[in-house]
Amino acid sequence: MTNHRGHLYGIGVGPGDPELLTLKALRLLKASPVVAYFAAKGKKGNAFSIIETHLAQEQTRLPLIYPVTTEPLEPPLSYESVIADFYDTAAAMIGEQLNAGRDVAVVCEGDPLFYGSYMYLHDRLAPEFPVEVIPGVCSMLGGAAVLGTPLVYRNQSLSILSGVMTEDELRRKLADTDAAVIMKLGRNFDKVRRVLHELGLADRALYIERATMPNQRVVPLAEVDPMASPYFSLLIVPGPKWQG
Amino acid sequence: MTNHRGHLYGIGVGPGDPELLTLKALRLLKASPVVAYFAAKGKKGNAFSIIETHLAQEQTRLPLIYPVTTEPLEPPLSYESVIADFYDTAAAMIGEQLNAGRDVAVVCEGDPLFYGSYMYLHDRLAPEFPVEVIPGVCSMLGGAAVLGTPLVYRNQSLSILSGVMTEDELRRKLADTDAAVIMKLGRNFDKVRRVLHELGLADRALYIERATMPNQRVVPLAEVDPMASPYFSLLIVPGPKWQG
Repeated sequence: MTNHRGHLYGIGVGPGDPELLTLKALRLLKASPVVAYFAAKGKKGNAFSIIETHLAQEQTRLPLIYPVTTEPLEPPLSYESVIADFYDTAAAMIGEQLNAGRDVAVVCEGDPLFYGSYMYLHDRLAPEFPVEVIPGVCSMLGGAAVLGTPLVYRNQSLSILSGVMTEDELRRKLADTDAAVIMKLGRNFDKVRRVLHELGLADRALYIERATMPNQRVVPLAEVDPMASPYFSLLIVPGPKWQG
Repeated sequence: MTNHRGHLYGIGVGPGDPELLTLKALRLLKASPVVAYFAAKGKKGNAFSIIETHLAQEQTRLPLIYPVTTEPLEPPLSYESVIADFYDTAAAMIGEQLNAGRDVAVVCEGDPLFYGSYMYLHDRLAPEFPVEVIPGVCSMLGGAAVLGTPLVYRNQSLSILSGVMTEDELRRKLADTDAAVIMKLGRNFDKVRRVLHELGLADRALYIERATMPNQRVVPLAEVDPMASPYFSLLIVPGPKWQG
């Protein structure tokens, strides 16, 4: 045991292209004796894959394996309770390392505080341990860069929405913004596309899958197969052009 | 003259901390014979200051000096016409380099397509020249990281708003979002703070100036002097915590 507690680093590793790692992320990753990452069972996870080549053999890999939640759960179990337990356990595993005086880097796809799973560890561990967050390039910025489209001009507003929202909510929010990014499409794609058409935004909307990853794909809105839209897909409705 | 046209690179250099540059940005910056940057007269500009130490002597610096628009303009001149002329001229200067076969890197604070001046060059030059945009860590992500606050959980919506909006517009948009980031505060600060209080959001709101820059400052909302709030300040209203 030691009185020196380790530092927790929440490290954004960018949207997919390993070159979109920041200099600071790389430095701290190489210096951290323990590197933790979220992954599905039997997989490496995207964040870890992005940075794996930078790690040395003696660094400890700490996988945080998401529980499988495809089966229907019997009460009192619920998706919420299962996932909360998982984050409790993951935070405890990391806390053990920190208490032993070892720094832990948790790698996160995109940015750690922008819809990332890291946030749930942060909320549990930041009250107790020294924590630093290294921001990263988030997926919507990676998407806009690949599409080559300005997102928002001057004083325009930008709304970041989830495909999970109801049709009414999507319609209302899209009608009251200059520009929008819609994430979490997947099986919500058809609903979202319908609303974009209704509001006359379909011509402006751009769709991209897995931006900056090796298997990225840009598909015209009309040609997207709603049954095959992956989790890492985005719709961008850029703000109306301002000539400047 | 040559038939080979140069490539234009719109390069995000992050919010201020030079270590928040990406590996890709650094590689392309070092390889570009011409590095262009926006600046006020007599100043280096933030973006250029962030990357200056990485440049070699033989690389050409191409400053794009904003016109001074503090004087009232006589019609037919307007802020819009003066700034449009400026971007036309800047695009022409860069186009000359590209036509001569030289690659040009335009450095942009934060991300190039997220409220950046680069967008106005992009819209003018992308139809004619090969262009690549390198996304960067934008200021709102830098701000959240320094404040150590998750921005948005799960399926929450995030609205990015400008302090320039009318009080009514701010009120309406803030009332219909889970989380918000408000930029361009400056002399709009008082109005924005009033609306946050009205909506009961003042307790959740966090204020930061020049996030990740050497002179960054975190100030409690109640203590912000609205006469001294700089352009590079942000208000963040994080989404309600989700325990996960």
